Amino acid sequence: MKVKEMMDKEYIYVSPDQDVVEVSLIMEKTKKFTTPVVDSEKKLIGWITSLEIAKALREGKKKVSDVMRPKEEIVNVHENDPARLAVLETTKHKVISIPVLNDDDVVVGVVRTFDIVETLSQLYEIKVYKIFEAMAGELKGVSWDELMEASAIVTKRRTGQRITPEEYEKNIRDATFGEAIWATGGLEKFFVGLIAIGELVIARKVARARQ
Amino acid sequence: MKVKEMMDKEYIYVSPDQDVVEVSLIMEKTKKFTTPVVDSEKKLIGWITSLEIAKALREGKKKVSDVMRPKEEIVNVHENDPARLAVLETTKHKVISIPVLNDDDVVVGVVRTFDIVETLSQLYEIKVYKIFEAMAGELKGVSWDELMEASAIVTKRRTGQRITPEEYEKNIRDATFGEAIWATGGLEKFFVGLIAIGELVIARKVARARQ
Repeated sequence: MKVKEMMDKEYIYVSPDQDVVEVSLIMEKTKKFTTPVVDSEKKLIGWITSLEIAKALREGKKKVSDVMRPKEEIVNVHENDPARLAVLETTKHKVISIPVLNDDDVVVGVVRTFDIVETLSQLYEIKVYKIFEAMAGELKGVSWDELMEASAIVTKRRTGQRITPEEYEKNIRDATFGEAIWATGGLEKFFVGLIAIGELVIARKVARARQ
Repeated sequence: MKVKEMMDKEYIYVSPDQDVVEVSLIMEKTKKFTTPVVDSEKKLIGWITSLEIAKALREGKKKVSDVMRPKEEIVNVHENDPARLAVLETTKHKVISIPVLNDDDVVVGVVRTFDIVETLSQLYEIKVYKIFEAMAGELKGVSWDELMEASAIVTKRRTGQRITPEEYEKNIRDATFGEAIWATGGLEKFFVGLIAIGELVIARKVARARQ
């Protein structure tokens, strides 16, 4: 995924000569805590947040350029950068949004932390059931019931917890990937559990073929 | 994971009677865009953002209570809620932070979107290599080289891409889980690829045992 697939294209931008009161009203109306400051060609020259606006209002500063932070001081990303870079920059610098530039330094979007949260959380929200469906589709000659039975056996072996295949199925229908990772103690452990289930159903399939 | 494990405990809070200029200075100094408004027992009664502070300064309002949003209008979570709930509320309401309460409605923390991003992104940043290590540990009687060889074969079968076991190993040493999911077309597909690899190494192990 690239930055441009995650960025908000409905962003606002202001000019350095704009009046601080006017910008404050725009930010309030659009509920934006930050906005890029651009020149006449829409190239990034600075950044202003509602904290700087409040400072300007307190101190009687009139223009955006009086309180904006210059381009050199702010984080930015390129529209074709991997989305991962915007994520890492956000956590590294603890910012709530990052301007996105094209090859000409023109602002083409803004990445906001809640857009990142939305993108990242999609993975966590995938139902565990979906993974088992994919697994059942891959393991030719293994029925869904056999898969649930093997899952219940592996659960018993690994955790000591007695669970029926029906209960197991109900659990994975309700659980999300994020919850499953949390419950099993991490991504690797979750996958290892699935591999153990796969191994058991394959062993049973091989044993059946021999009979 | 619970909300209290993800929340920021280094938050600021203000009282409804506090002077807007003073609060503006505190928010600027601590770089906070938002702060809970609490009573003398630290119970949540409202919320104020730097946008409301700017509004107050523009309109000559003096006290926090003149511009704060009342508790009823804002999202909050309980410290023992699943962290997932804070994530869902963030994306649903597009907020940058959420106050966290205990049983007595006392503010005990604030969940900020970049804390959420940091927590969520950890999963994406896990090296694919770690998953293969766990897989090799689970599949008894299968060597690491056999696993890499099977991986190269499965890659060829599924994508048509010719890759040596050595190249495959190099790829998974560099790649993160997030990149792998992206490259394979989703979590389910990534996992199905792992199952296919597991199936192949098990089939080879069984064949070897028969000889």
